[in-house]
Amino acid sequence: MTCDYIVTISREFGSGGREIGNALAKALGVKCYDRELISLAAKESGVSPEVFDDVDEKATNSLLYSLSMGMYSFGNSFSGDQLPVNDKLYLLQHKIIKKLADEGSCVIVGRCADYVLKDRKNVLRLFIYADKDYRIKRVIETKGVKEHKAEQVISKTDKSRANYYNFYSGKKWGQPENYDLCINRTRLSDEQVVDIVKAYLKL
Amino acid sequence: MTCDYIVTISREFGSGGREIGNALAKALGVKCYDRELISLAAKESGVSPEVFDDVDEKATNSLLYSLSMGMYSFGNSFSGDQLPVNDKLYLLQHKIIKKLADEGSCVIVGRCADYVLKDRKNVLRLFIYADKDYRIKRVIETKGVKEHKAEQVISKTDKSRANYYNFYSGKKWGQPENYDLCINRTRLSDEQVVDIVKAYLKL
Repeated sequence: MTCDYIVTISREFGSGGREIGNALAKALGVKCYDRELISLAAKESGVSPEVFDDVDEKATNSLLYSLSMGMYSFGNSFSGDQLPVNDKLYLLQHKIIKKLADEGSCVIVGRCADYVLKDRKNVLRLFIYADKDYRIKRVIETKGVKEHKAEQVISKTDKSRANYYNFYSGKKWGQPENYDLCINRTRLSDEQVVDIVKAYLKL
Repeated sequence: MTCDYIVTISREFGSGGREIGNALAKALGVKCYDRELISLAAKESGVSPEVFDDVDEKATNSLLYSLSMGMYSFGNSFSGDQLPVNDKLYLLQHKIIKKLADEGSCVIVGRCADYVLKDRKNVLRLFIYADKDYRIKRVIETKGVKEHKAEQVISKTDKSRANYYNFYSGKKWGQPENYDLCINRTRLSDEQVVDIVKAYLKL
């Protein structure tokens, strides 16, 4: 099976977007990049992955907050090293996403990849979401979140992802107009979602 | 091919949702209801289809406006006949949509059908949309709208559809959470959209 598309996946927290990304990559015979983008950014910059991990998919905090959290800059040149860590990670991931897209078909989860690749024609931009009850059940079962905290964690993570997306893209996360296909996966297995995407790609 | 689903289609103006509804109904071997719902409502109530045509998919205007436009009520009983024509049509279509769903699989375009059938499990709620440029081109070519008016007509019609949906459902038109599948049809033929829906329905 050949696929000439880069598939980007935006996803609500607890909707299983990452697992769908993996299943899709497997079905298409390509690689899926999710947290791997942190390792690649760390490798490229020489910064510890743990530092990036803390700010991954989070929009820049205020300067004061960044300073107080020790998140502000490393290095002392004027070559971009004085940026907050969030911005630094965004720019590195931006560069890496473009490079991966140049290299050929792949699946990229999160990190504004749809926006980063907005000028390319061979990009399928997916938004994966699910009903609230489905997501609550899922984060309890698969992420070890306590029942009474689940709704709060979901809401907080989605808000953080939305802020990140809105901040860097200037668009609104989760609005259909930013995507080619928005799939409510509540009633679907990962495999069914893959079949729907394959129908889009005519595979 | 058998289909145990009622497919409801919400659609942006100029996205070709009606044509997709027809193509889908044909592929599934079922009937598609769009403007037919006006005729059915007219038949059921004895009101002229032209009267309903004016208020179709429009939310209730203010009482004063309704009175000034002669749109307020007909008959003089307390059995619902004193409602504004918009509300009367909504209630009639609501009843007809439920009856059609009871009778078996079909495709229903617009008229808050996803909301009307919200308590049923065998409903696939679609939202069909497209990029602005695609829609402008389409309304010029297929609806005879003048080029300089196209954007305005699209924006006005979408606003009217959104008001209608939001008013009667209490939800927000075009938000993914109200639908099972949102398809940006800009790069797709009607047939490709049908194939994607068939993949959802496992057909």
